[in-house]
Amino acid sequence: MSRPSEDELISAYFAPLAGPGAFGLSDDAGLLAAKQGQDIAVTTDIAIAGVHFFPCDPPGTIARKVLRINLSDLAAKAAEPLGFLLGLALPESWTGPWLSGFAQGLGEDAADHDCPLLGGDTVKTPGPLVIAITAFGAVPGRSMIMRGNVAAGDRIYVTGTVGDAALGLRLRKGAAEDAPWIESLSRADAAYLAGRYLLPQPRLALRRALRAYARAAIDISDGFAGDLAKMLRLTALTADVQFAQVPLSCAGRAALRAAPSLTGTILSGGDDYEILCAIPPSHCAAFEAEASAADVPVTSVATAARGKDPPLFKDAEGRAVTLARPSFQHF
Amino acid sequence: MSRPSEDELISAYFAPLAGPGAFGLSDDAGLLAAKQGQDIAVTTDIAIAGVHFFPCDPPGTIARKVLRINLSDLAAKAAEPLGFLLGLALPESWTGPWLSGFAQGLGEDAADHDCPLLGGDTVKTPGPLVIAITAFGAVPGRSMIMRGNVAAGDRIYVTGTVGDAALGLRLRKGAAEDAPWIESLSRADAAYLAGRYLLPQPRLALRRALRAYARAAIDISDGFAGDLAKMLRLTALTADVQFAQVPLSCAGRAALRAAPSLTGTILSGGDDYEILCAIPPSHCAAFEAEASAADVPVTSVATAARGKDPPLFKDAEGRAVTLARPSFQHF
Repeated sequence: MSRPSEDELISAYFAPLAGPGAFGLSDDAGLLAAKQGQDIAVTTDIAIAGVHFFPCDPPGTIARKVLRINLSDLAAKAAEPLGFLLGLALPESWTGPWLSGFAQGLGEDAADHDCPLLGGDTVKTPGPLVIAITAFGAVPGRSMIMRGNVAAGDRIYVTGTVGDAALGLRLRKGAAEDAPWIESLSRADAAYLAGRYLLPQPRLALRRALRAYARAAIDISDGFAGDLAKMLRLTALTADVQFAQVPLSCAGRAALRAAPSLTGTILSGGDDYEILCAIPPSHCAAFEAEASAADVPVTSVATAARGKDPPLFKDAEGRAVTLARPSFQHF
Repeated sequence: MSRPSEDELISAYFAPLAGPGAFGLSDDAGLLAAKQGQDIAVTTDIAIAGVHFFPCDPPGTIARKVLRINLSDLAAKAAEPLGFLLGLALPESWTGPWLSGFAQGLGEDAADHDCPLLGGDTVKTPGPLVIAITAFGAVPGRSMIMRGNVAAGDRIYVTGTVGDAALGLRLRKGAAEDAPWIESLSRADAAYLAGRYLLPQPRLALRRALRAYARAAIDISDGFAGDLAKMLRLTALTADVQFAQVPLSCAGRAALRAAPSLTGTILSGGDDYEILCAIPPSHCAAFEAEASAADVPVTSVATAARGKDPPLFKDAEGRAVTLARPSFQHF
């Protein structure tokens, strides 16, 4: 059977996902209709097969993950998703069923998050599959929540639990040295950690709480320790963090009990897609109540303090936890 | 010397290009401040080394070309550039001088087109270099010029000249069968065609003329014949085009004289990044005057007529010009 043309491919797989601003993917550009008094947050992420995801994972899951990574950036800005663009570079080996699964997962997630496809570009590549997603979100005019606005004395909160995805990735890789702790996990715990790597949960539901009470926020993509350092150093702040206060899942705790050296992976492995945010002390109670109403677990982990050093992590005995590297780095 | 971290790479090469909505590239998202009564046109293009550009070309020129391909989409929508996002997947072999040249070319073109960098993502790839640019442009609210709005009787205009870039690409590839016509060209004509492939000229200056008089517009990326067909079929129209009326450059005419079989390459080779647009007959004179005032050459090539067949190209004797394929297709 001959391969479909680019236009046929778009109309077969992606036109069904097109939102009202996409004109059936038949135009040079999509359209974002901005409402009065709103600004638009724009974010983009590139994901490469074999680098950012396992090529053999279900295509729908791969699509969902890359969309959700972008939605997590919008969540950190307390933005309301408006739509996204999809850039896709397909290797020669793509198949109809693969692309169909990819489009289905993408379409379901786009619908679930009210974030329709507005346009894109599909090309062929001699290299690995590349997925480049750009997402748009509405924020109140002139008041998007930034990373670089933490004040000394602000409480630092984190959503959900930290380190699960990084543990899930090590579990997927299954290096020989990891066999003892991996084999010590229950099947349910192993599946939980693997699932947290496979499919992040963007914290869009925290929007109201962030808009009402947060002074600053960042999403954790490159590791809790490194992203906390990034946020704090923009206003020359630091923090002492008791490791015992960092929220871990039951599965994460089980892994850590089996291999205490996993602390570094948990704190700096990345791929969490949880939100770190700074709340002035007077707003903490209200923030916690609003987060709870939105069903987003939040944990206070530290207080921002003046200082130029990166945040210090301390164990139960008050000793510094040393991290081989504070965060995931591509280069 | 050790490689810079991702953050160091961004602050060294890309932070200097950051516009006011980019916050020094230190946040999760960039910000587009929409003005009241404006909508935002969004467009994205992925370019792969060895597929969309020659990897050995100067890095600044590669950067400019990919930005300009996006600006050409904005030009077709009569949009005013607001900024762009850069997704970059670098192979292991990247060097500081290469990236420095890339950033310099990109920065100069961004400044020349008032289109600042608003954010991006830089990752490492085991495959070829990938450049994914998303560009934003302001359009009057609720009235972006679309492709699919041509009416029967509209005159079809094209900017500039057609086919130069496709000839330039063949010239760069230098296949043995092309040697006769390539060698017959003057050095100036050869350089002109190669330059048209290397650096498109987005027709942003046509904005006022398009907004005032155009019923529909499309930018020619995949070939004059195919993109004209795409625009016309959206409203079930067709056209007869005299090949002699299609505007060619002096260099293009010289190539065609040497090898009349180049007609197909000229009409359907792509990479023109000129604008095709439909003007109601009563507005043609005013459109031509406004385009001339903006220093954008425009040529009337056909009249839209009812019919479902693709546009028919005819030679001086009225015979149909057959095209092996109407446009460039990736798949």
